Amino acid sequence: MIAKRISTLEYAIRDVVLPARELEKGGHKILKLNIGDPGGYDFDAPGYAKDAYIKAIREGKNYYADSGGTPEARREIAKREKRLNDLDVDEERVIVGDGVSPLIQYVFGALIEKGDEALVPSPSYPLYLSFPKYFGGKSIEYKCDEGNGWNPDLEDIKEKITPKTKIISVINPNNPTGAVYSKETLKGIVDLAVDNELTITSDEIYDELTFEKYTCLTRIAVDAGASVVQMNGMSKNFFATGWRIGYGIFYNSDELYNACAAEARNHLCAPTPAQFAMAEVLNGPRDFLEENKRKIMKRANYCYERCNEIGLPCVKPKGAFYAFPKIGDGNIDDKKWVLDLLKEKYVLTVFGSGFGEYGRGHFRIVTLPPEGVLEEAFSRIEDFMKTRK
Amino acid sequence: MIAKRISTLEYAIRDVVLPARELEKGGHKILKLNIGDPGGYDFDAPGYAKDAYIKAIREGKNYYADSGGTPEARREIAKREKRLNDLDVDEERVIVGDGVSPLIQYVFGALIEKGDEALVPSPSYPLYLSFPKYFGGKSIEYKCDEGNGWNPDLEDIKEKITPKTKIISVINPNNPTGAVYSKETLKGIVDLAVDNELTITSDEIYDELTFEKYTCLTRIAVDAGASVVQMNGMSKNFFATGWRIGYGIFYNSDELYNACAAEARNHLCAPTPAQFAMAEVLNGPRDFLEENKRKIMKRANYCYERCNEIGLPCVKPKGAFYAFPKIGDGNIDDKKWVLDLLKEKYVLTVFGSGFGEYGRGHFRIVTLPPEGVLEEAFSRIEDFMKTRK
Repeated sequence: MIAKRISTLEYAIRDVVLPARELEKGGHKILKLNIGDPGGYDFDAPGYAKDAYIKAIREGKNYYADSGGTPEARREIAKREKRLNDLDVDEERVIVGDGVSPLIQYVFGALIEKGDEALVPSPSYPLYLSFPKYFGGKSIEYKCDEGNGWNPDLEDIKEKITPKTKIISVINPNNPTGAVYSKETLKGIVDLAVDNELTITSDEIYDELTFEKYTCLTRIAVDAGASVVQMNGMSKNFFATGWRIGYGIFYNSDELYNACAAEARNHLCAPTPAQFAMAEVLNGPRDFLEENKRKIMKRANYCYERCNEIGLPCVKPKGAFYAFPKIGDGNIDDKKWVLDLLKEKYVLTVFGSGFGEYGRGHFRIVTLPPEGVLEEAFSRIEDFMKTRK
Repeated sequence: MIAKRISTLEYAIRDVVLPARELEKGGHKILKLNIGDPGGYDFDAPGYAKDAYIKAIREGKNYYADSGGTPEARREIAKREKRLNDLDVDEERVIVGDGVSPLIQYVFGALIEKGDEALVPSPSYPLYLSFPKYFGGKSIEYKCDEGNGWNPDLEDIKEKITPKTKIISVINPNNPTGAVYSKETLKGIVDLAVDNELTITSDEIYDELTFEKYTCLTRIAVDAGASVVQMNGMSKNFFATGWRIGYGIFYNSDELYNACAAEARNHLCAPTPAQFAMAEVLNGPRDFLEENKRKIMKRANYCYERCNEIGLPCVKPKGAFYAFPKIGDGNIDDKKWVLDLLKEKYVLTVFGSGFGEYGRGHFRIVTLPPEGVLEEAFSRIEDFMKTRK
């Protein structure tokens, strides 16, 4: 008999992979616009990061690290936040994890008891929808407003806060919408968190991948004295998703840090040589980033334009590598639409409702593939749209 | 307010690190016999494994892998189990994780509801004591019998099975006792599991590090048609703890596999280039292992002899890299004794009760350090013993 908590685990991004794999077994070539993984397309970790990783392996840094991370990694994380966001990080309040995913799990595991509520964005990265439920609580979806560049709707958040609310989760720059939130929105969220004593989780994993001005939520939250967990890592900014290196920085809550540190001890540690690589490059040159950003922005704009041309109204992405168009007028079974597109045209995307209620009637495109692939994909999507009229 | 589940998380092995760190800050040099990490002493991952890891990084295998692991890794895992244990592994029933720890968490998360029970060895590796409680259940400690080479006591197990028992966990070769279980004991455990429809978790992470004949529990369990999760990885056999690569193989329970696979999806994947390294070496030459085993056995025997000489009765280790001596007649506060030894003689070990009730009055020594370190440590322990008479 399987525990009930398992039924709470949904992960739309990987759930569409199974039908695609079946088609591949049948000999079909699938155009994949479904996973936000630069290394799956024509991107790779920068050479100097790979060199640092290799050096660590060669030098025998293949042992267990401290559960919270190597001192070198934590020192450089602190230095980075000082440099980019003028934040004063206590290195003893940093936990390095194998990606950000375990950090998300630690925080929900530390704060959510049966019946407790977490306010999570909608549309959202699926883990934020799952983990509150996995721990016996509820994920309450707050509306991100397509009409306002997918910024969170402060009124909606306010209405949904109850005495049971423990956490508000923010993803900025956003997956799946490609939004970069306004300073006013972020201030509004922090005010609500402070007034209602909520812990903020601030997922900033795409923070160096923006095409417009970016404001750091953690900076505002720390100034306001809020309990906030700032999350980031190597996966996206350093195009090294497979290295599994993320981290959380805990501000204004020793209690929460201690709880998450206890959880991290039961995972032993994050990969050690990759931590040494991170320490070497986190404050190193960013030439690779400028070059990659130009490529990414060009592709994102192409997706944005093509979507709007063919009847898929789309808000212009301002960061990350996603676009989240509406399917026509949005009154449609988005899961069926996405699976039909896959089966009929062999183009793999993710259905919007897999990202939460407010994702319904939409779908997510990963904007990373090379122009040729995107052109072919949109040409097929256009054909597919015509058959639907 | 921190969730109650956090208070269930104890991890004695890393809990003794804090007082040691305080002493180090005060300028004291600590002899560390506390963490089972070969790379912390004079061992390292074999050169050809490091080469394979480096090749994968250079070749750009830095992307997300499938949540269950790369096809190459899963194929070689299957091949290894065929080769060593004549097991027929379904590659679609393998999950590669960032170490074995997440696999342990997945299995308990998938099977334990509030009030459910897991039978776990005592003394035990601490994670097995923690996770059942973390998920709202109970860890019921079954006795491992010091008088019978620390083999599990079948009568004790039988008496402790209730309608609430879901899982029986076995660690063989054993951490913390260094025991390698007899075939009869393993058969007895499997019979009890089959009769009572328990899932077996079989932690075999030290299976190539034995000094005497080793019997694979999974082999017996599969023959008997039991639901069993076989766990192993690179950490110990390949002296690569910091790479964070472990795996679980699921036999005779598609339901459990599917549940754990859903949990694994929410962790995205295990480190990709390290998975490629594992695939290259899992069935490769073992010269490094033979050489390291000779070193390890010599050191284990030295610890065993010295313990017994100075009034710390110790069962002879048969595998892994631990010794678990009794402190005198065992009627002693083992935690205080270990902390006093640390404070007075700067020798760091782990108190036996941190491994469960049946560990009380004992302590664990990691037998990996070079002879010089072990000699110095035992000389200090001998002095310490004299002051206690």
